[in-house]
Amino acid sequence: MELTVELLPIITGGSRIALLSEESASSLGVHSSDRIRIKYGNQELIAIANIAEFFSPKRIGFYDETAKALGVKEDETVSVQLAPLPESLFNVRAKLHGERLRENDIVTIVRDVVERHLSTAEIAAFLTALSIHGLSSSENEALSRAMVATGKTMSFGEGPILDKHSVGGIPGDKTSMLVVPIVAAAGYTIPKTSSRAITSPAGTADRVETLCPVNLGIDEIKNVVAKTGGCLVWGGALELAPADDLFIQVEYPLGIDPMLLPSILSKKKAMGATHVAIDIPTGMGAKIKTRTEAYTLASDFVDLGKRLGLNIQCALTFGDQPLGCGIGPALEAREALATLLGGGPPDLRDKAVSLAGMLFEMVGAENGRAKAEDMIDSGKAAAKMRQIIAAQGGNPKVMPDDLPVGCEHVEVKSERAGKIIWLSTDNIVRIAREAGAPKEKGAGMILHAKLGEAVHRDSILYEIYAEKNSKLTSALELAKTLPPILLTTKPAEKMILDQVPEKLAHEKTFSLDR
Amino acid sequence: MELTVELLPIITGGSRIALLSEESASSLGVHSSDRIRIKYGNQELIAIANIAEFFSPKRIGFYDETAKALGVKEDETVSVQLAPLPESLFNVRAKLHGERLRENDIVTIVRDVVERHLSTAEIAAFLTALSIHGLSSSENEALSRAMVATGKTMSFGEGPILDKHSVGGIPGDKTSMLVVPIVAAAGYTIPKTSSRAITSPAGTADRVETLCPVNLGIDEIKNVVAKTGGCLVWGGALELAPADDLFIQVEYPLGIDPMLLPSILSKKKAMGATHVAIDIPTGMGAKIKTRTEAYTLASDFVDLGKRLGLNIQCALTFGDQPLGCGIGPALEAREALATLLGGGPPDLRDKAVSLAGMLFEMVGAENGRAKAEDMIDSGKAAAKMRQIIAAQGGNPKVMPDDLPVGCEHVEVKSERAGKIIWLSTDNIVRIAREAGAPKEKGAGMILHAKLGEAVHRDSILYEIYAEKNSKLTSALELAKTLPPILLTTKPAEKMILDQVPEKLAHEKTFSLDR
Repeated sequence: MELTVELLPIITGGSRIALLSEESASSLGVHSSDRIRIKYGNQELIAIANIAEFFSPKRIGFYDETAKALGVKEDETVSVQLAPLPESLFNVRAKLHGERLRENDIVTIVRDVVERHLSTAEIAAFLTALSIHGLSSSENEALSRAMVATGKTMSFGEGPILDKHSVGGIPGDKTSMLVVPIVAAAGYTIPKTSSRAITSPAGTADRVETLCPVNLGIDEIKNVVAKTGGCLVWGGALELAPADDLFIQVEYPLGIDPMLLPSILSKKKAMGATHVAIDIPTGMGAKIKTRTEAYTLASDFVDLGKRLGLNIQCALTFGDQPLGCGIGPALEAREALATLLGGGPPDLRDKAVSLAGMLFEMVGAENGRAKAEDMIDSGKAAAKMRQIIAAQGGNPKVMPDDLPVGCEHVEVKSERAGKIIWLSTDNIVRIAREAGAPKEKGAGMILHAKLGEAVHRDSILYEIYAEKNSKLTSALELAKTLPPILLTTKPAEKMILDQVPEKLAHEKTFSLDR
Repeated sequence: MELTVELLPIITGGSRIALLSEESASSLGVHSSDRIRIKYGNQELIAIANIAEFFSPKRIGFYDETAKALGVKEDETVSVQLAPLPESLFNVRAKLHGERLRENDIVTIVRDVVERHLSTAEIAAFLTALSIHGLSSSENEALSRAMVATGKTMSFGEGPILDKHSVGGIPGDKTSMLVVPIVAAAGYTIPKTSSRAITSPAGTADRVETLCPVNLGIDEIKNVVAKTGGCLVWGGALELAPADDLFIQVEYPLGIDPMLLPSILSKKKAMGATHVAIDIPTGMGAKIKTRTEAYTLASDFVDLGKRLGLNIQCALTFGDQPLGCGIGPALEAREALATLLGGGPPDLRDKAVSLAGMLFEMVGAENGRAKAEDMIDSGKAAAKMRQIIAAQGGNPKVMPDDLPVGCEHVEVKSERAGKIIWLSTDNIVRIAREAGAPKEKGAGMILHAKLGEAVHRDSILYEIYAEKNSKLTSALELAKTLPPILLTTKPAEKMILDQVPEKLAHEKTFSLDR
């Protein structure tokens, strides 16, 4: 069938879609989501058919990217016919029926995700099936390799390339901002890419951005790493494992995360890492709630690492409460900087030197932790951080208090004396986000009491910071409904954790931040 | 945030979507698939956010249906903020995690599907989870009831309202075209709605359409049934259980069909049926391959029927080969008419009088089958069919040979003598569709040899009919690769059914026709 091209003035960045009228779809025998083969001169392209009511039967609608791919202009004529469904879709269907996919099956799926030949509904079905059926070791390997193969990769030359990653889940975890300068100060290479917050009050990229630009290109990253041995950049626009970015977009509304392992390790592999420390925060406040889960995940990481040629060690870390005291991009960057300068909260310092020490020992050093401590105490880590800040285009002389935080701020005091028995990371995340984090970089919270501490009546429990008064008010309002910190005078005093039925039961949080 | 409305010149009939620039999405803290609340004067509406590159940050894009729902015009200003995720989405997530949904959870999902508040990706994930986890009896009931409650319903007064349904899967099954006039001729009410073919060469609506219009409105259907006691109409545009129509659209590319039971029975319930005969073709050539499966499905139908107040009997019918000889809309209508007139193939007559007889006995008659035979032999069924054809706007005097069939036609002869051991319904479907069915109503096949029959060398095995010579050629070409009829001289001669690896292994058929 010959149809006239109509350019649709929208770029959705989504699937490669062509719009047909009901009439021409019916003549072609095409149903919604069927594929059509479009020919224009020597060019040929497969698109997913969307069927539109009230669309001219003589026309075919192309989004900009489809038109560009075909090299066709408005009002030109193309030839259209029904195309068979892609092989990848049959492999998706096989997974829906619980079959195990072979390497080549997975390659077809990942390639068609990147080339936009699978619709979001088809990708959603695939991810749902993975989430329910789980992935075998060889499926995880094949997915990782296929995601690396369909994206860009970087190389930082000979010698071990170190990296560190947290599976995420506790607020205030600014450890990477310490591990990178500590490791680089010891002469190793550690090109760290990080994500921005999706569901949390700050991602590492958001935190570092209060000190220097993080949105660097591949060549800029190479320069920074060549100069300093490390970097702290945003990984989102580098097109490392672009399939993963598309998977995450679909996973987000569904609240599922079946590809945690290949998602993380494909990006490490794409950055050329050889030795990776994986932090698995474990506890009531973390994504991983129990040690059993954590050990299983850790073994899976090590196993997949071996298959991919990555040397991996996992650390199960205390995940019952936030790390340190600051929550929100600028408040966390302040705290990270203060800790590099020798101060800061002890839990943050401990975690950073432990993880850095683990990395040192992975590449053959002895007494890794002592070596990491020394990097801080000698001032070398702080100096390295200033080098990295300068190389990425920030002010190397910055001091913690130079970083602007929200000028609207309130202290919340304890109504009685008692002992802290619970910090709700879920509630802390929601309050900090209500205050404006991560978008408003100065917004967030400072926790003044952590687990096990005793407080007096009128002790400050926490502060909320915001850039706008209205946001401060609504965050404070939310904190009344969702108390971030609970205390008790006797251990048995707070036996009811939640009530059902109750509206909150539905508002389970889901974290996709990595 | 205040944004200016830009109308997008497309109606996709899909989700209620609003387009935002990356910049304004980021300011609002909105990620792709998040919901936004849009206010315009006193009107308020929740839409799913799509984030577009290169879209003006001062604007918000509305598809026509969103703009209409809000009553807003181009260049007017609306106020936009991030909205919480809908409760239905949390219920979808619960199903993804294998939880059992309660009635009210399912109501939220079905309502939000109909109101386009769930995206196709979210619906796809829900259907995938249902397909993998299965549905409990109470989930099936709740889905059926919710689908009826969100659609239109019909009522045909006092007394039993009979209906008949096939779960589908064998080509050439034109039984409904006989059961309806037989039952109506005996004085019962049987308002039958049918579907068009999606993956098969003909649906009942396609077959009947060669005799009279089938695209009737609700009032027209009432008139036809009041006059004749029966009807044979297309159910697709009546908005009975519209959620089901949306579910089927998403299921189609995924090749899954988890809602078979509620999909069928919600539509029967919406038509006011009280007694329903369900035909379950069982065998190598049908959707249901084994008796075990068929008995399970039959019990599930009866069980769900009880919960919905429907009296149901299921018939397991022979499903190893097509029914009758004609395949394709006009060829099948010819055969149905011939059988009503006392001729036709014996298997078709047997199936029709058996099912009609079953319905008669369900409402208290004795010797149902004999009664059904009598309706044909006395000419009453044929007279009733002519009444129905006239009431729906067709020519009541039509004779089988009056129906035009494809003028391009070829006979395929046997290359040797032997016995028919296999008719591949999959291959027959593909060949008939390649010839032009169901779009070209005169296209299709006539089978001249059925299972167990002996043929001579040069006996005609089958004919292919097409309206266009090119289609006849390509159907004949396909028939060489995918033989529709296999014969053997000795029973052990054809032991290899298929080979792996082989391209065909991927092209499994999937039928959503009901």
